[in-house]
Amino acid sequence: MKKAVILLSGGLDSSTLMAIAKQEGYELYPITFRYGQKHKKEINSAKKIASVFKAKKHMIFDIDLKKIGGSSLTTEAPVPKQRKLKEISGSIPSTYVPARNTIFLGIALAWAETIGSRAIFIGVNSIDWSGYPDCRPEYIKAFQHLTDLATKTGAEKINKIKILAPLINMTKGEIIKKGLSLGVDYSITHSCYDPIKDGKPCGMCDSCILRKKGFAEAGIKDPLT
Amino acid sequence: MKKAVILLSGGLDSSTLMAIAKQEGYELYPITFRYGQKHKKEINSAKKIASVFKAKKHMIFDIDLKKIGGSSLTTEAPVPKQRKLKEISGSIPSTYVPARNTIFLGIALAWAETIGSRAIFIGVNSIDWSGYPDCRPEYIKAFQHLTDLATKTGAEKINKIKILAPLINMTKGEIIKKGLSLGVDYSITHSCYDPIKDGKPCGMCDSCILRKKGFAEAGIKDPLT
Repeated sequence: MKKAVILLSGGLDSSTLMAIAKQEGYELYPITFRYGQKHKKEINSAKKIASVFKAKKHMIFDIDLKKIGGSSLTTEAPVPKQRKLKEISGSIPSTYVPARNTIFLGIALAWAETIGSRAIFIGVNSIDWSGYPDCRPEYIKAFQHLTDLATKTGAEKINKIKILAPLINMTKGEIIKKGLSLGVDYSITHSCYDPIKDGKPCGMCDSCILRKKGFAEAGIKDPLT
Repeated sequence: MKKAVILLSGGLDSSTLMAIAKQEGYELYPITFRYGQKHKKEINSAKKIASVFKAKKHMIFDIDLKKIGGSSLTTEAPVPKQRKLKEISGSIPSTYVPARNTIFLGIALAWAETIGSRAIFIGVNSIDWSGYPDCRPEYIKAFQHLTDLATKTGAEKINKIKILAPLINMTKGEIIKKGLSLGVDYSITHSCYDPIKDGKPCGMCDSCILRKKGFAEAGIKDPLT
């Protein structure tokens, strides 16, 4: 059975990604990073999602990006709140974590090569997004090129590893509709950057606002609210 | 003062790299990875080198690549011994660590962006080398392209971060001569993949053999032997 490594944060996008990879016939190897993020709660969501989708193996990988800092997700700096949609996608916000996708994809690549997987799924999106440079189509294309040169399988030109980003040109509403059609249970996902007590979403950070937009577009109620 | 992040393993190449960056007027920010390698001794060498070169800050970064495996440097698999030079550079050996340079450069990139450094030095070499795909000039070029797209500074097209690999086309002998001319003390470096008791080099692994070749070419005695 063909294997897929899936970057699984526990959010809405990566849960949908799990469903898509499953539908495409892959055996699922999700990887979740405990990197010092404020919203550690997403790791519990990732565990639930991995379990629901009967992942072959779920790797929780520890990497302390707090040691590097540079982001309001990994330091004491406040997360932006109550921003308008235009503001959210208009510039690179403080929640940008330097080189995060490069580090995460690098580790996913190591795992994929080791287990003989030829597909890495990443849930980046450049439509309803937060302006992160490492979520753009040109970034994914550049990482594919790097992958072809970085690895043993790439260098030997056999069974190259593909970087797959099937959500990249979808709106949040389209992603939710797709996920619902594949049976994703969004009640176990977590999107909020800065959850309030007992882990409930704040409703005001960029991630909550984009999620709200998605459910409104899809015309259904968010099970978390 | 301009800042440089330097991938410092504690070996011969990266020590020379420290000397080169210092000579070029950089303030030094070396980063050393404790990744589960058999030859942890190199970390002590890296600490000594960072201290000798008066690094502004030396980061020791923990990342558990044993959890992923796939290499004789991170598992119980034996390291190849007593291979001929032709064999060493002729194929990708079991000491190849999947995606290692991609992961290490990714973390170095995060640190560089956070501290406002515009230069990352990496001591890769494609002449007297072990055939690792992520040490080739085309790989470095691809990582530079990725860097330009991955980061905030890259996306905003201001003060791009440069990936510098000044040793890439030098022989081991040339690297040693260069280092000696800059005052590198090779007695505090460590190259061996599989040190014997009390940390002494085995003299038989690929890394020891390439080091031996270098000192022979430079026409001087290795202070470690």
